[in-house]
Amino acid sequence: MQVDFDSIQPETFEHFKGGEGSVTTQAYVDGNNRIMKATVHPHSSIGWHQHSGNSEIVYVLSGVGKVVVEGGEEPLVPGMCHYCAEGQFHSVVNPNEEDLVVFAVVPQHGSL
Amino acid sequence: MQVDFDSIQPETFEHFKGGEGSVTTQAYVDGNNRIMKATVHPHSSIGWHQHSGNSEIVYVLSGVGKVVVEGGEEPLVPGMCHYCAEGQFHSVVNPNEEDLVVFAVVPQHGSL
Repeated sequence: MQVDFDSIQPETFEHFKGGEGSVTTQAYVDGNNRIMKATVHPHSSIGWHQHSGNSEIVYVLSGVGKVVVEGGEEPLVPGMCHYCAEGQFHSVVNPNEEDLVVFAVVPQHGSL
Repeated sequence: MQVDFDSIQPETFEHFKGGEGSVTTQAYVDGNNRIMKATVHPHSSIGWHQHSGNSEIVYVLSGVGKVVVEGGEEPLVPGMCHYCAEGQFHSVVNPNEEDLVVFAVVPQHGSL
């Protein structure tokens, strides 16, 4: 099936998972996957959270930011891919003046 | 963790899953996910196959092609997302003169 983000209603969340500012998502969800385009707005973040029973794969479409992981940080620039494996924690941060736009998948694995 | 496709050795497959021509992939794989960049070369295809116990999410980075699904076809153009849910079949076709490059995730769900 086609996931057409242009036809999915955007939802904007303030302090998403305890982060700063606001995040807008367009998501297709079934029992196995959350498939989404997410925009972390300027000076905003997705707060520190754990992926239990699922994981997250993030591919940067536009903008520049960083991911905070256990033990460090990873840069996010267009074309870069971040993987939060099952059981791990992360936070996505946009400290800049432009939107950080990512394509992301959260698959359910159910093995935790 | 960062999945840096620039540091992942490309592998080229002829007649990938029974398709035409050749496909080049760069993949990071663990027990839960296959995370990859795949290039379907001109006049090439990934053959018709089923996703059993896993699914596949495809995001088009560049090039133009199509996905054959049960009951029809879906266009693939940059920014478009195709979802092959668990249990479904599909084939990815590039009938054109330019590479079709996609970011794709194959998560294991294990519920079949």
